[in-house]
Amino acid sequence: MNYDEESIKRHRATRGKVEITSKMPLETIEDLSIAYTPGVAAVSLAIAEDKNESWELTNRANTVAIVSDGSAVLGLGNIGPEAAMAVMEGKSILFKGLAGIDAMPICVATQEDTAIVDLVRNLVPSFGGINLEDISAPRCFDIEEALQDLGIPVFHDDQHGTAVVTLAALINALKVVGKRIENVKIVFSGAGAAGIATTKLLRDFGAEHIILVDSKGVIHRGRDDLTPIKRSMLDVTNPDNVQGGLADAMKGADVFVGVSVAGAVTPEMVRSMADDPIIFPMSNPVPEIMPDLAREAGAAIVGTGRSDFPNQINNCLAFPGIFRGALDVRAPRITTEMKIAAALGLAGLIAEPTPELVIPWSLDKEVVPAVAGAIREVWSSESSASASRREGVAGAAAGAVS
Amino acid sequence: MNYDEESIKRHRATRGKVEITSKMPLETIEDLSIAYTPGVAAVSLAIAEDKNESWELTNRANTVAIVSDGSAVLGLGNIGPEAAMAVMEGKSILFKGLAGIDAMPICVATQEDTAIVDLVRNLVPSFGGINLEDISAPRCFDIEEALQDLGIPVFHDDQHGTAVVTLAALINALKVVGKRIENVKIVFSGAGAAGIATTKLLRDFGAEHIILVDSKGVIHRGRDDLTPIKRSMLDVTNPDNVQGGLADAMKGADVFVGVSVAGAVTPEMVRSMADDPIIFPMSNPVPEIMPDLAREAGAAIVGTGRSDFPNQINNCLAFPGIFRGALDVRAPRITTEMKIAAALGLAGLIAEPTPELVIPWSLDKEVVPAVAGAIREVWSSESSASASRREGVAGAAAGAVS
Repeated sequence: MNYDEESIKRHRATRGKVEITSKMPLETIEDLSIAYTPGVAAVSLAIAEDKNESWELTNRANTVAIVSDGSAVLGLGNIGPEAAMAVMEGKSILFKGLAGIDAMPICVATQEDTAIVDLVRNLVPSFGGINLEDISAPRCFDIEEALQDLGIPVFHDDQHGTAVVTLAALINALKVVGKRIENVKIVFSGAGAAGIATTKLLRDFGAEHIILVDSKGVIHRGRDDLTPIKRSMLDVTNPDNVQGGLADAMKGADVFVGVSVAGAVTPEMVRSMADDPIIFPMSNPVPEIMPDLAREAGAAIVGTGRSDFPNQINNCLAFPGIFRGALDVRAPRITTEMKIAAALGLAGLIAEPTPELVIPWSLDKEVVPAVAGAIREVWSSESSASASRREGVAGAAAGAVS
Repeated sequence: MNYDEESIKRHRATRGKVEITSKMPLETIEDLSIAYTPGVAAVSLAIAEDKNESWELTNRANTVAIVSDGSAVLGLGNIGPEAAMAVMEGKSILFKGLAGIDAMPICVATQEDTAIVDLVRNLVPSFGGINLEDISAPRCFDIEEALQDLGIPVFHDDQHGTAVVTLAALINALKVVGKRIENVKIVFSGAGAAGIATTKLLRDFGAEHIILVDSKGVIHRGRDDLTPIKRSMLDVTNPDNVQGGLADAMKGADVFVGVSVAGAVTPEMVRSMADDPIIFPMSNPVPEIMPDLAREAGAAIVGTGRSDFPNQINNCLAFPGIFRGALDVRAPRITTEMKIAAALGLAGLIAEPTPELVIPWSLDKEVVPAVAGAIREVWSSESSASASRREGVAGAAAGAVS
């Protein structure tokens, strides 16, 4: 099937993909009096008295805003907010179809960081969470960071969704080849939102040897063209200060993660890697190296971003379940512990990983319950831990008094 | 039925009233490839090449944002954005149920005018129209005015929705009593958003004798406590510079319009009016005077804001059809001509008005087609007029050359 033509045809037929519908009937005067005036006044007053009631009496608790400025859409670059809407509507129906979450695509007419931050801040009363999407690096880091105090989770999916799913696939892939994360050398092609966030999460999970490569080559201490965020990554990457290009970094590496551009990896590079190399060329729609070429060159396991090859490493395995779990417990943010738990929950769905199966299928109905359950569990153990800390403090205080 | 209790119970059971659903299937990998990656990339690129395609390939053309800051909600005052959400969700389901429009409630965490203006400006790529709602006067005038150049209609319903429906009811009521708008004396109790906008629209329709009364009394030239907008209304109201209170204004008046507070009107005031007075005490939930009292005091026609009395003068008779029509033709704003046409379309649905029937029932299925049709007709005659003006200019230019 020619997906391009078919997709345009279908989008034109339905004028996009989302609609906003009612959960209450509206046929009689009585319906109107309950859903709208005069009855709704009592609902509004109940919320005015206790703002927490907005989570019970409006749809807020199940609503996420998908906010994009269209500055880094798929692999298409800065195509603008109108064009980004088609992608955000796609995310919206994934949110609904996979996790039952009502997600409103909001593509904004500004690419100024402070304007985006202000706008998201002002959206809070209407939403239970914010999914930032397709905002270019390095702006995305500052924008997300500036929004962590809102009291609702703000999650840049290009960073953390990719990080969680990549970690999940890697956990199972390492099982297959019998290696441990603290011993493997991992090379990233791409040091944007996904590359940097995934590097951080793999570090948090125990990876000790990561090399980042951007379009200018290996990120090393001698480069004077690094953005502040890339420079800061040198504190936790490239311990041997390797220099050169992607080919230099790949020599002897155990794992390749591609979040960059089509065709960046050659069979020679794969052949230069350690035994049983794991290759995740996730560039979309065209991978850094095609799976058959990678396997011919010796790759033990290959995972791409595409649905037409085995092992699709796709964000939609993460964000629906992560938000489902976070909304269920009203978590105010998505912590590192939650991301790791989500990756473990996702990886755990494959009882016996094989080279062709290190990550579940994107539309597998078991994924959201597993990921959401992992998030809820972290939250409840954090909550009970902080409760027992409080009790401990109270006990100590009581002891001091006696 | 106790609507307060029932309404809270129902809202709690469903956690509010709106949800965001999908217009495309999402069961198979093929579905995913068409609605999302890789197919959606072609859709995004088509829009990037021609932004007009966002009206055909995303849901924008059918989507309205209902934006409120919660500063003047129903008659409840400044109860805040969280509490306002319940009302905005109610408007959303009215938009959908009556006009098939997808309306997203967005209650914002700021009550600063410039912040609201900036936010709405930045929402434009995602929406086909903006319904401003429950923003306090006089701020609402400036905010709406500042947003008329967006290229999509921005319509403050508390102003213009009320104005259109009141005009429609008045057109039919004047028919019943056999009076003409240019001859009648009209008194408004309330000079907020609704009072001022309705005054302006009645003037545009031919009313020549209107007196506005606010909480301090008649708005006259001797008052030094008037806001700029109220002062400016003196250019078009109170020609005889009547002074005093509501009772003074009401003497000899033909029409009373109440958009103020419960109980402001006494039977004595009604008795002091001209023959066959028309009384629209629209304060909600408790009218300025109860209909039975008004009729006992001689009112020929009574219309309120309530659904449990005849002649409910309710905004939901206007905004769904107005936006339906405007979205259908992609009108960049709602003009005075459109508002008058909408009122005439609405009034015209009652073939033979009677004292008990000057305005259609709020959920009457014929209302939206009539109002939307009137809007579309104004648009097409304006478009053809400007087309013939262009032709005229071209003709004149051609003439000059020959």
